[in-house]
Amino acid sequence: MRNKPWAIDYLESNAHIVDVNNTYSKKIKTFFDKDQPIHIEVGTGMGIFITTLAQQNPEINYVGIEIDKNVMIRVTEKVLELGLSNVRLLLLDANTLMDYFNENEVDKVYLNFSDPWPKVRHAKRRLTHSRFLSSYKQLLKKDSIVEFKTDNRGLFEFSLISMNAFGMTFENLNLDVHDDEPKENIRTEYEEKFSQRGHKIYWIQASF
Amino acid sequence: MRNKPWAIDYLESNAHIVDVNNTYSKKIKTFFDKDQPIHIEVGTGMGIFITTLAQQNPEINYVGIEIDKNVMIRVTEKVLELGLSNVRLLLLDANTLMDYFNENEVDKVYLNFSDPWPKVRHAKRRLTHSRFLSSYKQLLKKDSIVEFKTDNRGLFEFSLISMNAFGMTFENLNLDVHDDEPKENIRTEYEEKFSQRGHKIYWIQASF
Ligand SMILES: C[S@@+](CC[C@H](N)C(=O)[O-])C[C@H]1O[C@@H](n2cnc3c(N)ncnc32)[C@H](O)[C@@H]1O
Ligand SMILES: C[S@@+](CC[C@H](N)C(=O)[O-])C[C@H]1O[C@@H](n2cnc3c(N)ncnc32)[C@H](O)[C@@H]1O
Repeated sequence: MRNKPWAIDYLESNAHIVDVNNTYSKKIKTFFDKDQPIHIEVGTGMGIFITTLAQQNPEINYVGIEIDKNVMIRVTEKVLELGLSNVRLLLLDANTLMDYFNENEVDKVYLNFSDPWPKVRHAKRRLTHSRFLSSYKQLLKKDSIVEFKTDNRGLFEFSLISMNAFGMTFENLNLDVHDDEPKENIRTEYEEKFSQRGHKIYWIQASF
Repeated sequence: MRNKPWAIDYLESNAHIVDVNNTYSKKIKTFFDKDQPIHIEVGTGMGIFITTLAQQNPEINYVGIEIDKNVMIRVTEKVLELGLSNVRLLLLDANTLMDYFNENEVDKVYLNFSDPWPKVRHAKRRLTHSRFLSSYKQLLKKDSIVEFKTDNRGLFEFSLISMNAFGMTFENLNLDVHDDEPKENIRTEYEEKFSQRGHKIYWIQASF
């Protein structure tokens, strides 16, 4: 994604949709018009996934979390275009999730095509590392679900081992989502790209 | 496998290798020349896997468990040909494992390309169903490993969920064994066949 010097200005001019400066930290509910269950996506990318979900489920409030301001422009544009009142965006590093959210505040976490960080010495940066699982567990209500999809075999293998070691329960699992694709599957930007290259798409729903 | 009316006669004439009548039930150690750690394979098939392992690891005693007498002829022939003193075979239904073995008697369980039983109503017959996991746990020593390999996606998905729900720890996992195949991998008969048809081979090592 090309660097856009005007990115922060643009995002700040849409402060009703994007939180750039942790304005709603510890009070995310007040960012939405309606008080509804909150689902978050960590590493939203360009936002096809979360905006499609939000259109399908007006009774859920969606929070898109993305660290890259240039990418964030794209999802902001989508939210504006679609006039969605149940999506809010946080320009936030997932490492600081627990500074931002309160405990037991969220009903579901989505991770889609998270950066694989293939080098062993970078394992701690993977969004399914126990470090992150531990913050999802805190911000989620009891028995809530983490849903994770990727084409990256190494990351998926790591994630199964990591979630299992953390004591999570595997609710559902699919090692080839596009073989007999469920009609409710929403393809993300990366999913479309890597599926076209012949990669298998892996998916898991797990609870704490 | 064609039915061979002489199968039982043949197997009984090799009673020093195959136990057809539960002769060594509850005293499997006495079936071997040397007192060594015992590894078992459930659903041995024609026996390439277990006989190759046995040649590589003379310091382990291997028990091949197979329910089909016609198939059992083939692995018996291999053991005879190779003159292996550290392989013994049981003509036994895996459902009766705990009638045969004592607790904490075995150091490792192998499952290779187990029958998938794809129908939900047959789930209890899958060798990674909790029913079977529970008997492996009993006959295995503490912290021992179950190693499972298959090309069957549905069975592997089920097995990950089943092992996770049982509280097993995933030690190692590979969702495409033949991509960068580990040199220690021993291809079974089914593995060779299904790999040639382009199936991915899945593998897991899990402990209790
Ligand atoms: C490979 S992309 C996938 C994007 C999208 N989910 C999809 O499936 O098309 C990963 C995204 O996660 C974002 N990301 C990576 N690390 C992050 C972190 N620590 N906190 C928030 N977002 C992060 C990246 O900026 C990038 O947009
Ligand atoms: C699909 S074949 C795989 C054979 C071999 N492991 C391989 O990978 O080539 C499954 C084998 O398990 C055996 N089997 C199935 N159910 C069994 C049971 N309940 N107890 C013992 N063996 C069983 C079958 O007779 C068959 O030989």
